[in-house]
Amino acid sequence: MSLKDEIRNVARQAREASLILGNLSTSTKNSALKGMAEALLRSTSRLKKANAADVQSAKKERLPSAMIDRLTLSGAVIRAMATSLKEIALLPDPVGEVTRMWRRPNGLWVGKMRIPLGVIGIIYESRPNVTSDAAGLCLKAGNAVILRGGSEAIHSNLAIAEILQKVCRQHGIPTQAVQVIPTISRKAVEEMLLLEEYIDVIIPRGGEELIRFVVSHSKIPVIKHYKGVCHIFVDSSAALDMAQKICYNAKVQRPGVCNAMETLLVHCQIAPSFLPLMAKKFKAAGVELRGCPKTRRIVKSVKAAKEEDWSAEYLDLILAVRVVDNLDEAIKHIIRYGSSHTESIVTQDYANAQRFLREVPSSTVLVNASTRFSDGFELGLGAEIGISTTKLHAFGPMGVEDLTTSKFIVYGTGQIRT
Amino acid sequence: MSLKDEIRNVARQAREASLILGNLSTSTKNSALKGMAEALLRSTSRLKKANAADVQSAKKERLPSAMIDRLTLSGAVIRAMATSLKEIALLPDPVGEVTRMWRRPNGLWVGKMRIPLGVIGIIYESRPNVTSDAAGLCLKAGNAVILRGGSEAIHSNLAIAEILQKVCRQHGIPTQAVQVIPTISRKAVEEMLLLEEYIDVIIPRGGEELIRFVVSHSKIPVIKHYKGVCHIFVDSSAALDMAQKICYNAKVQRPGVCNAMETLLVHCQIAPSFLPLMAKKFKAAGVELRGCPKTRRIVKSVKAAKEEDWSAEYLDLILAVRVVDNLDEAIKHIIRYGSSHTESIVTQDYANAQRFLREVPSSTVLVNASTRFSDGFELGLGAEIGISTTKLHAFGPMGVEDLTTSKFIVYGTGQIRT
Repeated sequence: MSLKDEIRNVARQAREASLILGNLSTSTKNSALKGMAEALLRSTSRLKKANAADVQSAKKERLPSAMIDRLTLSGAVIRAMATSLKEIALLPDPVGEVTRMWRRPNGLWVGKMRIPLGVIGIIYESRPNVTSDAAGLCLKAGNAVILRGGSEAIHSNLAIAEILQKVCRQHGIPTQAVQVIPTISRKAVEEMLLLEEYIDVIIPRGGEELIRFVVSHSKIPVIKHYKGVCHIFVDSSAALDMAQKICYNAKVQRPGVCNAMETLLVHCQIAPSFLPLMAKKFKAAGVELRGCPKTRRIVKSVKAAKEEDWSAEYLDLILAVRVVDNLDEAIKHIIRYGSSHTESIVTQDYANAQRFLREVPSSTVLVNASTRFSDGFELGLGAEIGISTTKLHAFGPMGVEDLTTSKFIVYGTGQIRT
Repeated sequence: MSLKDEIRNVARQAREASLILGNLSTSTKNSALKGMAEALLRSTSRLKKANAADVQSAKKERLPSAMIDRLTLSGAVIRAMATSLKEIALLPDPVGEVTRMWRRPNGLWVGKMRIPLGVIGIIYESRPNVTSDAAGLCLKAGNAVILRGGSEAIHSNLAIAEILQKVCRQHGIPTQAVQVIPTISRKAVEEMLLLEEYIDVIIPRGGEELIRFVVSHSKIPVIKHYKGVCHIFVDSSAALDMAQKICYNAKVQRPGVCNAMETLLVHCQIAPSFLPLMAKKFKAAGVELRGCPKTRRIVKSVKAAKEEDWSAEYLDLILAVRVVDNLDEAIKHIIRYGSSHTESIVTQDYANAQRFLREVPSSTVLVNASTRFSDGFELGLGAEIGISTTKLHAFGPMGVEDLTTSKFIVYGTGQIRT
């Protein structure tokens, strides 16, 4: 069978499975999810063995150690995968929820009912735990999933899928609910991205290069985020202590993730008291500051920021710092240089808090809280399938509800149009 | 200026305007919409003059008379355009609506707030009334719009846009809120479809060929529907009189539109009593029937349906008819041959009504009502910007709310992540 036919087959079978998945009862889905968690735990040694093959090749090919780290299935990672599946089982079932219903003058009752999207393609890199997390979320929302992980994780991903499929079979769920593309060639991804008659949406998870590749080749709608250039604006009325804690947390707690702060904006009135204190704290944590001229007049040791620093996603202990005249200038800066991901204001001023919240067009906008809360779990979605910085369908962290769409349902009593 | 630069300029200005539009007050938007309605009525003779130039060229180029009909701006069409803008002014403003808000264990209040999509590109054919309808809906939802109508309507569309822009100026709204691409070359559309940094979504309205062109060239997300192959299933328990009225209405009232019935499915138990009556009514209305063998055994005069009839969108007084054994066979037929647009069941049976409503994965599913109700106005959305049969972002008729997205807003009191 040609590669094209092989991928087509996978997608067609996913479509067929999706018709059954959409009508599964909540209890069937939940017991399958719990069964999957237990099966993963029982298969720890088998998973570690499959994973060892991947890790060995990765070392042989001298992949970066951070990548090998993400690739490795330790006992702790496997336990976390199982816990995540159990937590997904506890989430409310979004399928069939009627979110609104209203009555028309002619007596028709019109409502909106959540239904699964259908078939979801996930394209991701190294982390094998995405395989079970994504499979669990897609199953909960009644979707079939086609998983295409990085070639470096192929043995781990196939082993995980096989375990999950066995549990599907035990629960009378089609095994094509969860499929891993077994071909490691990138051509397989290209073929997959053309199958708009079988796949409803593609969610890429990984670096900007992967995501741009997917967007430029896909005929299927893509939900994506390129990067997170997150800002905190410390307003003139900010409480100094709160501002320091929030800024420190947003930059230092986990600098390598997309919701970490990359640019700090400081109101000119508070900058002389705030910046020296903050710079001292950041220095102690090893954070390199790159500042505008006004920042450098206040804290002499700060390096000069270049134009490209204002749109940089460092993912590292580096921070761009700019002193601004007022809230308007801060919002303008965010719109001009930001990535629509996450921004926060630290303020005691009621009007400025409300204006920032309303006027900043980013996917998560916070008042007096760390940008690090921009995360499906932290915001209360229960789990996260990805994050979107494009505004269509979903904007911000995506939970299980975002794996559904809503159809119109209409109860009539014989109405016709005149 | 090159064509590329010209289109880029339009899109960049739309993006800039969108930042202001998102923060307009409801009363500013509503008085502008009412002002636009009045300005169109006052400019009737000017609009007719611009339109006459388009109609004359269309006649010279021997365009089909149905197309010339759609192109013509009569006094009645202009009045309808004005009425539509006034109705849009009366709709609730979706921007800023907080649809949900919840509290996290750490004291964060998390909510979802509707904001505009940003910049919307509408690509459409002949009808100049789409220009003002789409502009009005986009403005109401705080979006800038770039309109690209058919080349045959260019004078009409430019005249309408100029009138609307003048009203924008009078209300302190940037005139780039409403822009018509002045170039008639198709190359202009291709350029527009590449500008993902400026345009958030493309909504094509027109024939399947246009829509496929847009989808295959766009780097920007597209909300689309290809066609409407709508079904009615007359169940064994249907009231004969109600079933006849609904089927007649769905096929005959306006056969040329996407929510007209194209295939009739009849339960085998009711077919012998229902089909002869129905066939007689359809015959009187000039409807040609194409049936399965069982249909033809009951009504001899029916032509034989070919395989392609089951997926045909006739948009004409033609109807495919199939006798099915039960509800399951009906649902299977709809999934196999349908277009996910609109389906209806006529039944007195409670369980079958509920099963049909839940299990048919189309954008509008009705019980005991005509498929012709699948329309934004009829369903109570107030107006319709288009219809989507892809499941992402919107599924079914799209109203003004579908021109917004939702961001997360978070009220904190100094929370950091640990």
